[in-house]
Amino acid sequence: MRSNKKYNVAVVGAGGLVGRTMVKVLEERNFPVNELQLFATERSAGKEINFAGKSYKIKIINRDSFKNIDIALFSAGKQASMEAAPLAVKSNCIVVDNGSYWRMNPDVPLVVPEVNPIAAKEHRGIIANPNCSTIQLVVALKPIQDKFGLKRVVVSTYQSISGAGQKAVDRLLNEIGDETHQSEYKHRIAFNTVFHEFTDDSGFTIEENKMFNEIRKIMSLPELPLAVTCVRLPTLGGHGESVNLETEKASSVKEIRDALQKHDGIKIIDNPSEDDYPTPALAMNTDDVYVGRIRNDTSIQNGFYLWVVSDNLRKGAATNAVQIAELIIKNDYFEFNSFL
Amino acid sequence: MRSNKKYNVAVVGAGGLVGRTMVKVLEERNFPVNELQLFATERSAGKEINFAGKSYKIKIINRDSFKNIDIALFSAGKQASMEAAPLAVKSNCIVVDNGSYWRMNPDVPLVVPEVNPIAAKEHRGIIANPNCSTIQLVVALKPIQDKFGLKRVVVSTYQSISGAGQKAVDRLLNEIGDETHQSEYKHRIAFNTVFHEFTDDSGFTIEENKMFNEIRKIMSLPELPLAVTCVRLPTLGGHGESVNLETEKASSVKEIRDALQKHDGIKIIDNPSEDDYPTPALAMNTDDVYVGRIRNDTSIQNGFYLWVVSDNLRKGAATNAVQIAELIIKNDYFEFNSFL
Repeated sequence: MRSNKKYNVAVVGAGGLVGRTMVKVLEERNFPVNELQLFATERSAGKEINFAGKSYKIKIINRDSFKNIDIALFSAGKQASMEAAPLAVKSNCIVVDNGSYWRMNPDVPLVVPEVNPIAAKEHRGIIANPNCSTIQLVVALKPIQDKFGLKRVVVSTYQSISGAGQKAVDRLLNEIGDETHQSEYKHRIAFNTVFHEFTDDSGFTIEENKMFNEIRKIMSLPELPLAVTCVRLPTLGGHGESVNLETEKASSVKEIRDALQKHDGIKIIDNPSEDDYPTPALAMNTDDVYVGRIRNDTSIQNGFYLWVVSDNLRKGAATNAVQIAELIIKNDYFEFNSFL
Repeated sequence: MRSNKKYNVAVVGAGGLVGRTMVKVLEERNFPVNELQLFATERSAGKEINFAGKSYKIKIINRDSFKNIDIALFSAGKQASMEAAPLAVKSNCIVVDNGSYWRMNPDVPLVVPEVNPIAAKEHRGIIANPNCSTIQLVVALKPIQDKFGLKRVVVSTYQSISGAGQKAVDRLLNEIGDETHQSEYKHRIAFNTVFHEFTDDSGFTIEENKMFNEIRKIMSLPELPLAVTCVRLPTLGGHGESVNLETEKASSVKEIRDALQKHDGIKIIDNPSEDDYPTPALAMNTDDVYVGRIRNDTSIQNGFYLWVVSDNLRKGAATNAVQIAELIIKNDYFEFNSFL
């Protein structure tokens, strides 16, 4: 561990909801930044963003942008992941990419530091940050898998529209104020529930498919029986997940709670008699995964319910990416054999 | 069937969200009303409500209120169900009660006309209207049970705060406008998800327990394995339900869809390639149960997903109650052997 070293860090997509949160989280966690570079698409270029009391101008990426950068955190859309991430890797810069483009690539580790930190070691230039709804679920499932084994997981999500970016949040706020809103969109967001974009023909949404694939990859459980329904809500931040699971080994609510309680990154809030449970509003602007409503599901053997909540822009995106960067510097995972 | 007869009808709790909807639905469906009487608690008494172009004053119930009434629709809280409903029955008036007080009483049929109409025949003065989230689910489950048998059902709800009454809706709208809202309540409703009131010690909410008990009673499946999580959303009307089910017999998405399609009261909206699916906003002010997102759940044998949406104040409450009243007049279920 090079404990006093400082690093040159880039945030790519610094003008977006996740990018701005990445900059904020780097500062909050005292990430050892030597030099910070902010990049974005043309739309955000020129904007100024604050970091550690100093203002930084967002620049457009060019061929030399990553020459001097140690770690680049990407959250800038598919094209940037496809084109700029390899450019960075070729400049010997490690990329932590929040986009979905690289996640299922067998040469790219998909990492949640509380779940599969060791996977980061094998990186070949790019480490992928999982989908928001995946991250909070695997954090909650990991200690249960380790101790009791997972037989089947059924999850229905309650996801903030903030996961669709600033434009979607603006749409929600506009629709709330305008009862007669004649939208160009088929479904209104305000006072409603909507689904993510559908895949071509399976009947599932892209978000649901991400969860199927990513959960199995991160947990190294390629056959895990999983049922997933993803729903978007008119909330400003924080995702909820209603989880039903069956364990392989017999266990009790107390044992499940104990296993969760001991795990890094989990906070249990579960006191029904005091009306204490996690909510999206409570999770916002924090970095933990909250678990509540742990109870027995007697409709099946070894059945349990969980309610899992986390801030989708932080632990579900920016914080997890920064934690991956911390993992890299802590373990000195800088040497890599590029696959590009 | 006494096809030209008109009936004296009372709505008890006519000032509330459901009561007002009952009056509206009676008018819309051309219920054969001879004389209409509106009753309420002291709070709403004196208010005027429109029905078929005439204004009716809401009165306070007295001993003689039901002497001349054939059918009374109740949605006036627990005390009215406990005290005024028996008073009505003793006056030979049939009560359709939207409250939960009588629902699990073995002498009281719990009726959804598309599911168990025949149960109404055995009434002994009171017929109970089920809980909103129960009604829409049993309408969707019934054709599947009939054709393929249900082995297990896992449901997570997305319920409008309007189910908690006008005060909760007002709270939502106030909280939206006031970012710095210092609430007297533990959990804000706006931009958040909350749970219903908890039972004393089970970890389940009262709403969840209602669904467990009522679904089994209505479907005459006392042992049906059921897993239920109920969640309230900041929506103004319409409940969504994410349903996972296993059937006893092998079936396909097409067969499930065909069975649902043929059933009274169900509308299928399920065309992912056109982004067509049911939403709470779409269901509002309609009387159907909408089903979409019918797809195979390959994590288990004979597994299927459904997304079920309905207007909780209409099919989930007022419309179902009026449909029960229609069932009574259509089949001349007026004679009864009171259990009180």
